[in-house]
Amino acid sequence: MDNTVILSGTASNGIAEGLSKFLKLPLIKVENKILPDGESYVRIPKNLSGKNIVLVQSTYPPQDKHIIELFLLLDAVKSFSPETIILVIPYLAYARQNQRFNEGEPVSIEAILRIIGTMGVESLVTVEPHRAESFEAFEGKTLIIDPIPTLAHSLSKEAKKPVVLAPDHGAIQRAEELAVILKTDYTYLNKERNRKSGEVTLKKGNKYDFGGRNVIIVDDIISTGGTILNAAKFARKNNAGKISVMAAHLIMAGGCYGKLKKAGIRDIIGSNTIPNSHAKIVDLSKVIGEGVFSVLEAKGTF
Amino acid sequence: MDNTVILSGTASNGIAEGLSKFLKLPLIKVENKILPDGESYVRIPKNLSGKNIVLVQSTYPPQDKHIIELFLLLDAVKSFSPETIILVIPYLAYARQNQRFNEGEPVSIEAILRIIGTMGVESLVTVEPHRAESFEAFEGKTLIIDPIPTLAHSLSKEAKKPVVLAPDHGAIQRAEELAVILKTDYTYLNKERNRKSGEVTLKKGNKYDFGGRNVIIVDDIISTGGTILNAAKFARKNNAGKISVMAAHLIMAGGCYGKLKKAGIRDIIGSNTIPNSHAKIVDLSKVIGEGVFSVLEAKGTF
Repeated sequence: MDNTVILSGTASNGIAEGLSKFLKLPLIKVENKILPDGESYVRIPKNLSGKNIVLVQSTYPPQDKHIIELFLLLDAVKSFSPETIILVIPYLAYARQNQRFNEGEPVSIEAILRIIGTMGVESLVTVEPHRAESFEAFEGKTLIIDPIPTLAHSLSKEAKKPVVLAPDHGAIQRAEELAVILKTDYTYLNKERNRKSGEVTLKKGNKYDFGGRNVIIVDDIISTGGTILNAAKFARKNNAGKISVMAAHLIMAGGCYGKLKKAGIRDIIGSNTIPNSHAKIVDLSKVIGEGVFSVLEAKGTF
Repeated sequence: MDNTVILSGTASNGIAEGLSKFLKLPLIKVENKILPDGESYVRIPKNLSGKNIVLVQSTYPPQDKHIIELFLLLDAVKSFSPETIILVIPYLAYARQNQRFNEGEPVSIEAILRIIGTMGVESLVTVEPHRAESFEAFEGKTLIIDPIPTLAHSLSKEAKKPVVLAPDHGAIQRAEELAVILKTDYTYLNKERNRKSGEVTLKKGNKYDFGGRNVIIVDDIISTGGTILNAAKFARKNNAGKISVMAAHLIMAGGCYGKLKKAGIRDIIGSNTIPNSHAKIVDLSKVIGEGVFSVLEAKGTF
């Protein structure tokens, strides 16, 4: 434990600080700047030879800049020949390009995880990735943090008997988990996404009467909000009370916030894996910290 | 040869087209777009199974986006199990962070070359990188294209008896080569760069009387132009005639063009490794094409 440090990368959004406090470990912040030609410069201002290094680097927008900075940081970290490198990526970009939907596409997330695997990372800790299967491309160990209990805990008492709504088939497990925590029930929508146009439509046969009860739509990520808007529309049409949404990762690009508000969504609940000024933000440092602790413990470090 | 294609990446600036024409090989352009959340999407629109693929991807600004797109393209290319992948990077970013100038820094260029080496690239062709030694980090073969003869050939007759001026010690070989081609003489400046502040100053003892002759300052890259401005000032002070500059890679960031013009620099001569609307641009497709041809020939493909 004496030998372990938290290293805050160029995109931590407070999580490195939170880990440092929760785990009572020293915090080191990387120096960084953009050079006049647009290249990123990073530097670790302290010699970390022989340490256990917990590097925190999220990959929220601008994603490509933060990913390149991650690669540069890993090169700098390795120059110290550390005892071990544990990488915390609170939000992992490119997670939705997780298969070749059309011939000639990359599997972007696997390409990135494979690169990270070549750069000396022993363990990777991430929050609610789109599909856990993608991590088979990473050659080290992976620990996936479940944000749902922490997010659920943040709900006010009055909100604790809603219907949980999964906006598509992929969110069913999340919805079930949240419903169990809230001691309530859940349902889900069948939707289809056109892989060429990206358009989302509801399949026929979606039926549910919300009977005036409040609804919480739960997903892993809100990107442009199309999926959530579809679900909100469905809930509104089928006699829902107040509608809220909950997702760990809030990208909310392209006027998403305005659209969600306009659709009558009352609360947006998310986490600090991505900076966001519109939503109710829940700090995940503690649950991530518990994960990092378990990795260090398994190594006999704690 | 029947089996070889030129694949134009997301940053080719006409060089893929030029190679296709010069080598009489089919040209395929990747599809690409920016998704609403800011992630890059790329796709190769044609099945390239078993082909020799010459992928052209420069890494001019925005550098990080173009580098990530390169990694995604290589993943997509590999999905076809091609016969061989030859990668042409006309301008290679991060080439000046080629050593740990201060403890805790990455060797950025080596980190990037090492990644490319893990992604199935057999041969890498690039133009005038900052230091050839960096390519030891790349596990495949490297061919470095010398742009000086092509750039020199573009000079007008009247400009062909100038003094060639290397703006620092690192540019001496370039200056000598250009002077030999132009059948003229050269000189150089001793400068120092402060590694913390980035400031460039002349060492004492620089002396030369240009005697009214025209001067061509030659370098590998013009980034912000600080080095070139220093050299132009020195030339002006020491009785130079018309002053021109020549460099393969024209980044010219941060109002550089205005500064060069204000310093009385008449012509800026560069190449199409980077888009630039201010300079006299020389197409390097032919000399790069000759390099690619030699790589294919060595493989017995031509």
